[in-house]
Amino acid sequence: MDVKSVVETVKSPKDLQKLNEKQLQTLCDEIRQIIVSVVSKNGGHLASNLGTVELTVALLRVFSDENDSLVWDVGHQSYTHKILTGRLDDIYSIRTEGGISGFPKREESPYDAFNVGHSSTSISAAFGIAVAKQLCSVNGSTVAIIGDGALSGGLAFEGLNNAGKYKKNFIVVLNDNKMSISRNVGALARYLGGIRMNPKYLRLKSRVERVLIKTPVLGSPIRKLLKRSKSRVRNLVYKRTIFDDMGFAYYGPVDGHNIQELERAFAAAKSVNGPVMVHVVTIKGKGYTFAENDPKSFHGVGSFDIDTGEPISSKRDFSGVFGDNLVKLADENAKICAITAAMSTGTGLVGFSKKHKERFFDVGIAEEHAVTFACGLAAKGMIPVFAVYSTFLQRSVDQIIHDAAMQNLHIVLAVDRAGVVGTDGETHQGVFDVSLLNSVPNITIYSPCYFDELELNLKAAIDSESGITAVRYPKGGQPYKPLEYECTDKPFDFYGDKGADVLLVTYGRLFSNACRALDMLKEQEKSFCILKLNRIKPIDEDAVRQSLKYKKILFFEEGMKSGGVGESFEIKLDEMGFGGECRLFAIEDKFVKQADVERSLEILGLDEKSMADEVLKAYEEV
Amino acid sequence: MDVKSVVETVKSPKDLQKLNEKQLQTLCDEIRQIIVSVVSKNGGHLASNLGTVELTVALLRVFSDENDSLVWDVGHQSYTHKILTGRLDDIYSIRTEGGISGFPKREESPYDAFNVGHSSTSISAAFGIAVAKQLCSVNGSTVAIIGDGALSGGLAFEGLNNAGKYKKNFIVVLNDNKMSISRNVGALARYLGGIRMNPKYLRLKSRVERVLIKTPVLGSPIRKLLKRSKSRVRNLVYKRTIFDDMGFAYYGPVDGHNIQELERAFAAAKSVNGPVMVHVVTIKGKGYTFAENDPKSFHGVGSFDIDTGEPISSKRDFSGVFGDNLVKLADENAKICAITAAMSTGTGLVGFSKKHKERFFDVGIAEEHAVTFACGLAAKGMIPVFAVYSTFLQRSVDQIIHDAAMQNLHIVLAVDRAGVVGTDGETHQGVFDVSLLNSVPNITIYSPCYFDELELNLKAAIDSESGITAVRYPKGGQPYKPLEYECTDKPFDFYGDKGADVLLVTYGRLFSNACRALDMLKEQEKSFCILKLNRIKPIDEDAVRQSLKYKKILFFEEGMKSGGVGESFEIKLDEMGFGGECRLFAIEDKFVKQADVERSLEILGLDEKSMADEVLKAYEEV
Repeated sequence: MDVKSVVETVKSPKDLQKLNEKQLQTLCDEIRQIIVSVVSKNGGHLASNLGTVELTVALLRVFSDENDSLVWDVGHQSYTHKILTGRLDDIYSIRTEGGISGFPKREESPYDAFNVGHSSTSISAAFGIAVAKQLCSVNGSTVAIIGDGALSGGLAFEGLNNAGKYKKNFIVVLNDNKMSISRNVGALARYLGGIRMNPKYLRLKSRVERVLIKTPVLGSPIRKLLKRSKSRVRNLVYKRTIFDDMGFAYYGPVDGHNIQELERAFAAAKSVNGPVMVHVVTIKGKGYTFAENDPKSFHGVGSFDIDTGEPISSKRDFSGVFGDNLVKLADENAKICAITAAMSTGTGLVGFSKKHKERFFDVGIAEEHAVTFACGLAAKGMIPVFAVYSTFLQRSVDQIIHDAAMQNLHIVLAVDRAGVVGTDGETHQGVFDVSLLNSVPNITIYSPCYFDELELNLKAAIDSESGITAVRYPKGGQPYKPLEYECTDKPFDFYGDKGADVLLVTYGRLFSNACRALDMLKEQEKSFCILKLNRIKPIDEDAVRQSLKYKKILFFEEGMKSGGVGESFEIKLDEMGFGGECRLFAIEDKFVKQADVERSLEILGLDEKSMADEVLKAYEEV
Repeated sequence: MDVKSVVETVKSPKDLQKLNEKQLQTLCDEIRQIIVSVVSKNGGHLASNLGTVELTVALLRVFSDENDSLVWDVGHQSYTHKILTGRLDDIYSIRTEGGISGFPKREESPYDAFNVGHSSTSISAAFGIAVAKQLCSVNGSTVAIIGDGALSGGLAFEGLNNAGKYKKNFIVVLNDNKMSISRNVGALARYLGGIRMNPKYLRLKSRVERVLIKTPVLGSPIRKLLKRSKSRVRNLVYKRTIFDDMGFAYYGPVDGHNIQELERAFAAAKSVNGPVMVHVVTIKGKGYTFAENDPKSFHGVGSFDIDTGEPISSKRDFSGVFGDNLVKLADENAKICAITAAMSTGTGLVGFSKKHKERFFDVGIAEEHAVTFACGLAAKGMIPVFAVYSTFLQRSVDQIIHDAAMQNLHIVLAVDRAGVVGTDGETHQGVFDVSLLNSVPNITIYSPCYFDELELNLKAAIDSESGITAVRYPKGGQPYKPLEYECTDKPFDFYGDKGADVLLVTYGRLFSNACRALDMLKEQEKSFCILKLNRIKPIDEDAVRQSLKYKKILFFEEGMKSGGVGESFEIKLDEMGFGGECRLFAIEDKFVKQADVERSLEILGLDEKSMADEVLKAYEEV
């Protein structure tokens, strides 16, 4: 890259002030090149970042005071923000172990106002920040930047409802690109479509009213009527958008790729004494043809070839196996419905959405609604399958307890990306679902390690007669499987040397690591037994009973220790009078940082080497 | 009561058809008498039920087909529904052990379409039911009845957003009484206020446009412009309410105490081929003067004197102690803010809301937003205290993990109604919070048993420098406290006979039962030791270490066993090489039914008698 490039002159947002119109355009071009280059190597969010280049430049130019706060929603569009706030040199380390995060992090920069990774939090967080500044008499603007997809989340609405009555300046920028990850859905999306299609209509009404009031005969009584009404009624008559109804002054739509137009809108918004909504229209994937034409596929990507847009590697994964199997099951069972919260591609449901359109429901980014809606379907005899990433299932805990489990309704949770997820980092780790679901009655949980098992477990989950059945499976492809291992539909399996003194208990993907550990120790002529739990809730009593004879039991779990399967298993061992020693290896009370999956497991002590070491240590103590 | 009363002639909703206008009025009067009489004895929700008598009668008259479904939101307004759907004789058993529930229950009646207790679920659930009926080619209307308070919950918005694009009939009845439990807040509430204040404004605009089009000169180009625009733009020009924007045809406002007017509106709504919102205005507490004048105090009540409206008993409770202490702490610390999700009275924050108005935030029924908003405040150095019932905290799990804990932000959770809550029943039990919070890093949890301890713990929680600090305390008053027991600010306390072989470990309210058990056994000249955990996360290592010398350890916990403190404690004992036997007594994998608190603890085996029995059993085995 040219050392004299414009982007290298921007050490902090203040430097943006020095650039002229032409330099700003060059800057945006350079940033886009950097983003495409970095993401093609490290993977990451491409289309969302390409769409917000000009938007970020304009925001940082207008809100350049050190007390101004930019709160990005989801944060997968913050690469330009990172580049322009002193992290140009770090951007090449993004999403790698020890590198900067793919999402805003307060610990990285004072310009990152709030950490994020999940959707729809920005308005609530920014409103808190704005109120705190007011209480502490600190000046400075607070701006939440939220996509039209994220706006469909209930949390965003709760934030709007609360902030809409604020009496001071507070700015929400609606980054409208017509997309969640897939094309955006829902009534609000349709409504925004109406605004985008013909911005003139917004001005139409007030013009009509102006003209009307001036019209002889008619004008006077209407003017009187309007004058008579109290101001809030008058506001309703004059209201223009749903955002005005919610108390926000509406500015827009603004071309999100025109820096000058954006700056004018932001400057105007800054001067309003109350909440403002600036509606910005952007093109997701802007500037990289492949992404612009297919923003869905270029939302979150692995490394890819810049010239062709083709992914470097692409192999069959659990999501795909889940999706294909669900289509087959639904072919034969007209009760099966599939639900996604704006993740049809990620969760493997695209095939289902085409083949069984009338039974497919993309409810928008709305995990709470997804579960309660599923419960409504189940109450009338349908079999809803909600496919959701483990990390986003955290959004549905009360709906799972209060709406599903308490009524013992039969819904299926297909929990994708369970376990560590790698480079998306701590906000996206799927390490809480087991603990969260474990304490709730009327839930059965399966945890397959292989594609064949996923197929068997999914069928069992659907065929179950009542209650919640969850099937949780990891991100990515099938891990190592010993040739002689055969998948079964039994709740547990013993594998390895049943006569050994040491038993390693595990479930899900870690079984594969246990098998590798078995292979490793074979060379040292040491052996042990593996208990593989296929159904992790409830734990099969017989599995525990058969474990009692071992002297040392090591439980390895790719999830939080507290509330995990290991704790339950050890308690059951104690209850049945286990005389040996049991040790748990799981995620202790801390969050898991970004690193690729293999390395993450190594850091957590859940890799084959750690397992082999612990087995050897156990033998020393026997 | 007169045997020939009208209400006794209604064995099922079909019988409502036979009644004339006058009889319907008599019916409503009788129902109100029954409700006041029952609630004055059993406690329950009064004002909300008095407000929906005519509404329920009209709904059951218009939606009388067996395939029609009425889905009540929250369900605390369903007493009339119960009385008119075959449960008149059972109504006197409401909220008692073995009696009918104070909330809709599918197991009680086929007329109860969906179980509920928490807010804002009805639109999602009803939409699921409507879609299931369509997929199964079953006729019948589906109606969600939701209050204006519940509508502020994000889940309700997610439901509206999804249902607003539905192409078949689907009805939402907005029961607008201007209240959540307290007076309703937020931008949407203000907006509804505008509609209620002057319904004429709704008609104004379309009249204006009609007249305009007829006006010579002006009319023709405007007519043309409107004709030219595509239909969705035209809809936007003509739109009237926020609900139209969301895809719902809007009917209203309708007088919610005029049965004929209600029936006309519902009949009209039934004929629409798409989603409809019927806006009904009711008076909370209608017909009982004390409740009408002070609906907040008569929302959920204990037994009271009908003639005076005075509660039968009223004693100082944990909520009050919390509230008073928070005011005092806030007097001295300008950083402290208080947040409630529409529960200022229940959580004891009324005093704070008056004394520190600018630092008090009622965010509406929006527990997710409450936490993320608190995080925003904390990110800028404030100390937000979110007071929330344990059962409703289930709504905020992802915000606690993703927004608060992951950033290690210092927010305080004042978890009220922790443990069993009695007659509200299973939807309201506070038995999951410990398991849910336990698996999350950066959280400290205190569990006081006495008012003095609450004061000490609250201060410690606020003074903490980072992370989430939760203080959880039970519903109601202070339990039994031995004269010689003194509250301390230490993380744990031993009490009783430290030289005994048996150790009983517990926390929170159950310590009081353990002390009673100690007293009971004193008479039999048996003794044991009690370990009282004041801080339950993290468990103090020293507490575990000092427990190792006991032969038998019994852990009693008023919460779910899985993921609870007991499991963590036992695992730590094992890790430290405990050679004795540990047994856990907590809530096994099931929901807790309604019964008063004392009886609930007895059923769960957590009362003093059960404790004493288990201690004796342990001694037999030593």
